[in-house]
Parts: sequence; C-alpha cells; structure tokens
Amino acid sequence: MKNQKNRETDFAKGLEGIVSNTTRIGYVDGEAGKLSYRGYDIEDLAEHSSYEETVYLLLNGKLPTLSELEEFTDKLKGNRTVADEVMNRITHLPCPCHPMSMLRSGISLLECIDDTCRIAEDLEEKKEAGIKLIAQTATLTAAVARHLQEKEPVPPDPALPHGANFLYMLRGERAKPLEERVMDLSLILHADHGMNASTFASMVVASTLSDLHSAVSSGIATLKGPLHGGANERVIRMLTGISSIAEAEAFVEKVLAEKTKIMGFGHRVYKTYEPRAKILQGYAKKLTELTGNEELFEIAQTIEKRVTEAYGSKGIFPNVDFYSGLIYHSLGIDESIFTPIFAVSRIAGWVARILEYLEDNRLFRPRAVYTGPTDLPYVPVRERG
Amino acid sequence: MKNQKNRETDFAKGLEGIVSNTTRIGYVDGEAGKLSYRGYDIEDLAEHSSYEETVYLLLNGKLPTLSELEEFTDKLKGNRTVADEVMNRITHLPCPCHPMSMLRSGISLLECIDDTCRIAEDLEEKKEAGIKLIAQTATLTAAVARHLQEKEPVPPDPALPHGANFLYMLRGERAKPLEERVMDLSLILHADHGMNASTFASMVVASTLSDLHSAVSSGIATLKGPLHGGANERVIRMLTGISSIAEAEAFVEKVLAEKTKIMGFGHRVYKTYEPRAKILQGYAKKLTELTGNEELFEIAQTIEKRVTEAYGSKGIFPNVDFYSGLIYHSLGIDESIFTPIFAVSRIAGWVARILEYLEDNRLFRPRAVYTGPTDLPYVPVRERG
Repeated sequence: MKNQKNRETDFAKGLEGIVSNTTRIGYVDGEAGKLSYRGYDIEDLAEHSSYEETVYLLLNGKLPTLSELEEFTDKLKGNRTVADEVMNRITHLPCPCHPMSMLRSGISLLECIDDTCRIAEDLEEKKEAGIKLIAQTATLTAAVARHLQEKEPVPPDPALPHGANFLYMLRGERAKPLEERVMDLSLILHADHGMNASTFASMVVASTLSDLHSAVSSGIATLKGPLHGGANERVIRMLTGISSIAEAEAFVEKVLAEKTKIMGFGHRVYKTYEPRAKILQGYAKKLTELTGNEELFEIAQTIEKRVTEAYGSKGIFPNVDFYSGLIYHSLGIDESIFTPIFAVSRIAGWVARILEYLEDNRLFRPRAVYTGPTDLPYVPVRERG
Repeated sequence: MKNQKNRETDFAKGLEGIVSNTTRIGYVDGEAGKLSYRGYDIEDLAEHSSYEETVYLLLNGKLPTLSELEEFTDKLKGNRTVADEVMNRITHLPCPCHPMSMLRSGISLLECIDDTCRIAEDLEEKKEAGIKLIAQTATLTAAVARHLQEKEPVPPDPALPHGANFLYMLRGERAKPLEERVMDLSLILHADHGMNASTFASMVVASTLSDLHSAVSSGIATLKGPLHGGANERVIRMLTGISSIAEAEAFVEKVLAEKTKIMGFGHRVYKTYEPRAKILQGYAKKLTELTGNEELFEIAQTIEKRVTEAYGSKGIFPNVDFYSGLIYHSLGIDESIFTPIFAVSRIAGWVARILEYLEDNRLFRPRAVYTGPTDLPYVPVRERG
C-alpha cells in the first residue's frame, strides 16, 4: 500500500489508499490483470455465465442452482415495467437533456411512487427493491435513449433475457444472436469493479439508512462526472474521427511523437492487459464483421499495436473503454447512451456493495482539518469597507 | 484525534477520524461548544446577520459590503421561481410520497431542464448555479409541503427576504415578524456543520466533476436517512406526546430510572451546551408565547432541567434538534417538513464545501480490503448441487 498516511498536514487526498471497508463482493488484482466477482474469475463468468446469473452471484455470494436461477430470472422479468407516472415524467421532458440526468431523475421518481421501496431497515426487503430497480433501470435507460431520438418507449418483452431485452427496448426490434451475446457480455464485465467513486458515493448515502433509490440515484449522479464515466465516449469519438488505416498510422505516430494522452489506454489499477479489454477485443472482431464495421476495428487494432509496442513495457495497454465504445457503436447505439449503459450494468455492484455494507453499517463521516481564520469580529454591514 | 489508524486489519470504520480534506468554510469546537463559519462566531451571525448574508459569507469567505449584499439578495430573489415543467412533475405526484424524495427528484429534474446548470468546469458558473439552486430549493420545499396538504404552491414574493418568503410560501400568508426572525435564524444556524454525511456525499459526487445538481440531490438523498436527518421529528413526537408538566416530570424520571435514550440530548461532537441549542432556546420561549405553545415550552424546559441535572456533568445537554423541532412545530409546520427545512438551510454548506473542494479537486476513491474466497472453479448450472 503506497499511501496509508493520513496525518493532519499530510493526509491522503481523495482518500487514496485509505481503507473504507472490507468486502467479499469483488477483487481487482491489477498486477496480475485479474478481476473476480465473489471469487469467480471474470473470464469464466464472461464465457459461461449470463448477466442474470452474475447479478445473482453478486447479490447472494454464490452461483444459483437451476431453479434459483429460473426464479431470479423470472423476478427480473416481472419487475421490468416502469409505471406511467414515472415514464411520462421522463419521456416528456424538453430536450436536449443529459441522459444521465434523466436516468437519475427517473430512479428518484420511482421511489416517490413505489411504497414498497420506502426506507427499509430489513436487508431482504432492500435486496428485493434492488432487484426490481436493476430490472427497471434497463427499461428506463432504453426509454431515455429513445426519447433523445424522439421515439416512443418500447415495452419490455418478457420472452427475452436481460441483455437481449435491453437491446430490443433500445431498437424496437429483436437483435441478432451475436449482438445479444455481446450486450449480455458487456453487462457482465461492467457489473462491479472495486471501490470506484460511484460505488463509494452510493455506500456513503446508504450509510445514513436512507433508501436504496437514494443511494442508486447518487451512484448515477456520481458516474455522470467525466472523471468517472464517459471514457468510452471519448474513445469512439477518437476512432470515428479517423477514416482509414493509413490515417490511423499517421495519428498514432503523431500522438507518440508528441507524447500526448491517448484515449482508452492505461489504467490506474491494471498494469498489464486487463481481462475485460481482452475479452471484449475478441468479440469486437466478430461483431464488427457482422455489422460491417471491420474498418473501425482495424483502425483500433492499428492504434493498439503501435501504442502497445511503444508503451506495453510500461504497463500501458488498451483498457475496457477502448473496446466497449467500439462495441456499442457497432451495435448502433449513440455515444450519449454509453454511460447510461455502464449504469445499467454497474447498478448490480452498487446494490451488492450497499447491502453488504449495511450488514455491519457505520455512518461515513470523515473529518476536515480547519485551516481558515478564527475569532473574526463581526462588523455591521454599514461599517464595512 | 482518537482514531487515525487505518491498517488492513484495523481500519477506521465509517472513516471516523480520517482526514478527507482541509477547509476554510466552518469549524466546530466541540469541547468549547463553539461553531463558526469562515471564522465568525455563530452567536454573532445569529444575532446580527441574515440567511442571505450568511450564505454570501459561506460562499465567498468574507462578509459582503452593503452593495454586495443587496446584489446578492436580489440574485437570490430573482432565482426563486421553479419552472412549471419541474413544479408540475412534483406537485402532481400521487401521495403519500416522502417529502425528501420529492425534493430530491425536484432538484434532479431542475438540472434536466436548465441548460445553465450543465456540467460546468468553471467554478464561477458552478457558484451561480449554486445560488440559483439555494433559492429554488426553498420554493420547491414549500411546494412539497403544500402538496402533502393537498394545496397549490404559492409563488414567491419578491418583496420578502429568504426566510420570510419561505414561511410565506409554506402558509400562503405573511407570518408575524418574530416568526420570520426565528425562521431566518434557524436557517442561519443549520447552514453548515463540519463533515457530516450529506456534506461528504455531495463532495464525493462532485469530485467526479459531475454537475452541482447531481451533488446536491445526493446530499438530499443522504440527509433523508434516519441516522442523519429526522432527529427533531422524533423530539417533537416525544414532546407532543406529553400533555402536562406533571406528565413531563413523570416521563423524565422514568427515562432516568430506566437509563433509556432520550431524544434531543447529547451530541457526538459537543461536550457542552451547544451554541445552536442555546440560541434557539431563547427564541423558543418568545415564539411559544406568541403562538400559544407556552405549555409545550414548559414541558421541554422541565425535561431539560432534569436531564441536565442528571447528565450535564457527563457533557449531555439539549442539542439543536431539541429546540428546532419545538420551533417548527410552533410555526405550524408539519413534522414531515422538518428534514426538508434542514436541506433548505444546509444546501448553503453543501455548495460552499463542494466549490472549495473543486478548487483543488481529487476524485474520492478509498479502497476496500477483500476478505472473500478466491479462485473458485466455475461449475455449469446443471451440475450444481
């Protein structure tokens, strides 16, 4: 641990390195390039699991039996509907409106009209509220995306699993099997990732025993900030701004020569090729072949090859955002919806970590060191200079 | 500092004692029973200042000149209106609905429709958004309170100062001068108080460079929790449940004999009679005489006298919640609106501390120690026991 010092004059800015809690939810091993949920390697989950099973695992600490999985999947399906009172309030907002703001407001409003999600001291009730909200957040996000295109919301299809239904609600028609697989995979890969700012914020909110929707809407509020969400938007803007392999080569040489920052490379924690990027890379190739975005994939590969040659020895590799943007773009999703999709997935991690923290809750309340003036005399307003 | 340890196995739960930042906004000296904003003693501000001047002080670090105060007051007045797009979405929600949920949603929706409060990197723009939101939060809170009584919102009166106008919007008619004075005073007293959970949560959200409304709505979300807001509701329920001095005497003897917790006494930080409670106590006497709640005041005094005799030597005295509940009740305000009023005031501290933190921002991101299983083999669902 590099930075555990926390004295008055030399404290850890941003609480970096400070331990806030213990967890059994997930683990990131940056040196080895490994990510696991509840002890299961993300590569196994990506290969064999589904988003539904992964959410069950995160919330319950174990993989479900077949009947548990069926019951859980049915519960998610049965909770997808967002009541008109909320849907109409969001989808009739005057545009332009930031999709994360709409999503934050929608989740906040859901709590207003749903008396099953009142402040629940019982953790099982809070978990049920969480499962319902995981289902509804996908519906709300799809409606937000369509509202920005001036289209009506598409009701969920109970025949479809979570990821496939999400794509269906975005498009209004069934996606191809590979597209559905890639969406499900991406939701699995983003479901949890240590103590990031949105996870921490949602835990701080929940620690006052406020309701789950308060905590999750605060997670959305946090993820909206460009220091947290939005990296894959910036990647796809970079990639789609390049129109050929030759241009990509010129672009990357210029970036390397000028030593400017290149979007989608390097990670605070991972010092090797991160597992999420590696998994998405393989699917990005297949997906772009299906959707006719091969050239964009080749452009990405050209940049990756050259940057990795130059900086791989320093631990700089493509990160998950480098390929997730490419994948969502190939799925025909507007870049403004990339961060909301992050939320559609990450809400599972937020809920799991909130519930875990509440098992042995302590109100989060650090201290600030006062460095301002003291004992100033109050001077009446007419006597001030 | 009692608890600065933060090792893997023995970390500070709830980040208690851990320094998160330095500040020049406000200082609580629990031992001496002193609270100051920007170096000015709260007793001076309570006696001589107004909420408008106090907000200016918190945001700008100095008391305003007469012309600065007039300009600032005009700016608050000019920003009170909440657009119909938001007002209608909140005041037509199906009741019953938690007022803090309505307020959280209203602030979230305000950001959706107001493109001046987009993600502003410029801190002066963020401050302007904050001033506007401070004004609008009072309007929204009054509308929420009236909605719960099935009454239409009352538009703000630009002739009135902040506290008086807030009371006017709650009631639909002008309050008496002492009532207006007490509301203004209470808003001054609650405007800032160290690194409480809602202040911290709003700073965590803001640290991703998300918008100010995201941070403030998360502050509301946090304050909603019963471990943070709501103590004065519990006090007034206790006080109004006692119908005579004799009953108060019996009540307090029983509580002392059984050593059960008594609402509105003791404070985590203050180990002496806290300044806010002392100030409110004096005004509570005058106010209850005006409003005909003398007996309730006498009941409170009876309890205070006896509890303080018994526990004063241990540093147990009435806290601010003991008298704020009595005051709001005497002003005819329903107890469900006590915590929203807290927000109407505290938003000044949130905004001030967010802006200060952003001057030298660092994303808040502590770490969790993983204590769960590792390297579990994935077993296909049909092979699970």
